[in-house]
Amino acid sequence: METFSAKAYGTQAATVPLAALNIQRRTVTPHDVEIEILYCGVCHSDLHTVRNEWHNTVYPVVPGHEIVGKIVAVGDHVKKFKVGDLAAIGCMVDSCRECAHCQEGLEQYCENGNTLTYNDPDKFLGGQTYGGYSERIVADEHFVLRVPENLELAATAPLLCAGITTWSPLRHWQAGPGKKVGIVGIGGLGHMGIKLAKALGAEVVVFTTSESKFEDARRLGADEVVLSKDPEQMKAYNGSLHFILDCVSAAHDINAYLALLRIDGTLALVGAPENPLPVQAFSLIPGRKSFSGSTIGGIAETQEMLDFCGEHNIVADIERINIQQINEAYERLLKGDVKYRFVIDMASLKK
Amino acid sequence: METFSAKAYGTQAATVPLAALNIQRRTVTPHDVEIEILYCGVCHSDLHTVRNEWHNTVYPVVPGHEIVGKIVAVGDHVKKFKVGDLAAIGCMVDSCRECAHCQEGLEQYCENGNTLTYNDPDKFLGGQTYGGYSERIVADEHFVLRVPENLELAATAPLLCAGITTWSPLRHWQAGPGKKVGIVGIGGLGHMGIKLAKALGAEVVVFTTSESKFEDARRLGADEVVLSKDPEQMKAYNGSLHFILDCVSAAHDINAYLALLRIDGTLALVGAPENPLPVQAFSLIPGRKSFSGSTIGGIAETQEMLDFCGEHNIVADIERINIQQINEAYERLLKGDVKYRFVIDMASLKK
Repeated sequence: METFSAKAYGTQAATVPLAALNIQRRTVTPHDVEIEILYCGVCHSDLHTVRNEWHNTVYPVVPGHEIVGKIVAVGDHVKKFKVGDLAAIGCMVDSCRECAHCQEGLEQYCENGNTLTYNDPDKFLGGQTYGGYSERIVADEHFVLRVPENLELAATAPLLCAGITTWSPLRHWQAGPGKKVGIVGIGGLGHMGIKLAKALGAEVVVFTTSESKFEDARRLGADEVVLSKDPEQMKAYNGSLHFILDCVSAAHDINAYLALLRIDGTLALVGAPENPLPVQAFSLIPGRKSFSGSTIGGIAETQEMLDFCGEHNIVADIERINIQQINEAYERLLKGDVKYRFVIDMASLKK
Repeated sequence: METFSAKAYGTQAATVPLAALNIQRRTVTPHDVEIEILYCGVCHSDLHTVRNEWHNTVYPVVPGHEIVGKIVAVGDHVKKFKVGDLAAIGCMVDSCRECAHCQEGLEQYCENGNTLTYNDPDKFLGGQTYGGYSERIVADEHFVLRVPENLELAATAPLLCAGITTWSPLRHWQAGPGKKVGIVGIGGLGHMGIKLAKALGAEVVVFTTSESKFEDARRLGADEVVLSKDPEQMKAYNGSLHFILDCVSAAHDINAYLALLRIDGTLALVGAPENPLPVQAFSLIPGRKSFSGSTIGGIAETQEMLDFCGEHNIVADIERINIQQINEAYERLLKGDVKYRFVIDMASLKK
């Protein structure tokens, strides 16, 4: 298979800082497009993978799954794109496309296992897939999204992971007019959750451990803000929420939030705390409540989210960095010192 | 308010055995019926309440909420019953009937708090409500169920709690043809869950910690039986079940069962383990799974269940006892030594 060399940023081991390296990309096959990457968002998963915190990293690894750019080449059978179009790639670059879930547009739950954008076996070249900290990427057009022209391109990148990860559960559990929706945590995921829930028409209640975030929560779209460490403020919301989107990755008391749900309400986890969360039987039984989880979204759903963001002029709140600042950005990410997503300007890779 | 004296069995304190006592019942008001209790099932909740294990018991307490009998008096406005009819009462004898949930037939989730059959404030007489370990009970006809004439009456009693507690979640999460349903635990609840899920047309997989229960599980309706302490047997069911009804009140590993659910599957808890159950985020997130709970069922739904049992000739597997054996029965219940429900023959109260 024909390939070409592309500049990238990655690492050879869990304890080594990210640095420039070269990777091979396949030359477009009939259904592929080649994208010049203009911006790539920095997701906490990148950091987990780079440092092998999920114990499944194959090195060298090139992270990045919030990718936006411009089409520079198309295969003979490509229908959705032409050279010069804006395009985006999220967390997946392939799936089996034959199982019931793929047929239903739920590629994120592919029964035979989808291909993640990085650190997953590469069906074409062998080895692992390489992500968006790179100048170019090649993927089947089915897994490439159209990008609304009116959005600020850099700030659009985080929609591909933080956006769809919050959009999919908000849609699945029907956040919208007449629904009171809680968003727990204001970070990369939470700040998108607030914007999207509000734009969907829900009444949005934001829960944060820090009073210093109240103003920002309101600016992002919260109708009400609750200091989650104050039991009195929490109690006032008992039994009042239809749905809670829980965006917190740190340990926290799930029972305290389940108490805020109405009958038949659901709390969906999109953050992934490392240790098990203790759940009381009586947090669920008396109100037929559900403690659930959700991961990213399907391709059609991701396009729906991008189109919705185009219509409602929604992007992420970002801080632009050059690729050379990525190791420092990881340290700041660990401290929660970012409002609310780093986005790498990939032009810096040419320096 | 006019009252009459009725013989009953109850206790004055957590540490005192149950014994005969007399209670007051109201004379029927216009919407009430008076029932001569013929049989009353023995639910584990009776034992919890008698011994104040939920820390909310007001003494004297007369337990029992699996009540069947015969109508002996009706109020002037009663429409559903006439003297001589069979009738039944479950866990509730009243609710506000005005909130959204009551209007929807979800009296078990009444927003203003329903009135439980025993150990709940009695709106008519003050004090607490008294349950079915008694010769008579009086209740509003709305909370009284019709009993199919073809069923063995004593074995029908447990349908009023064990039956509806398993029926309601099986219906809510749509157990039926084409669905693979797991039932965890074979006791008072579980044995009804197996019978009902099978009669609803689901493919039923039963999980038990004891090989000695395999034969019984099959007799009750299991298509397949799994020894839950064997990781290899469990693994064979990974990702295969649409719904799991978890009837276990002892501590157990919820994550091991969540792994058996398909995408979008739900595990509903109807047993209530005392301590919190640790749930891994990754047990829920990758398959959009739900860990839920459910309690009894509404009045219309309870009638639907009884009618269904009449049509399919379903009753509980029971062991009849006299009321004088109740303390001994509690000790056997604690050891799980009953197949699968004790039912008190209330004629013994007259002795």
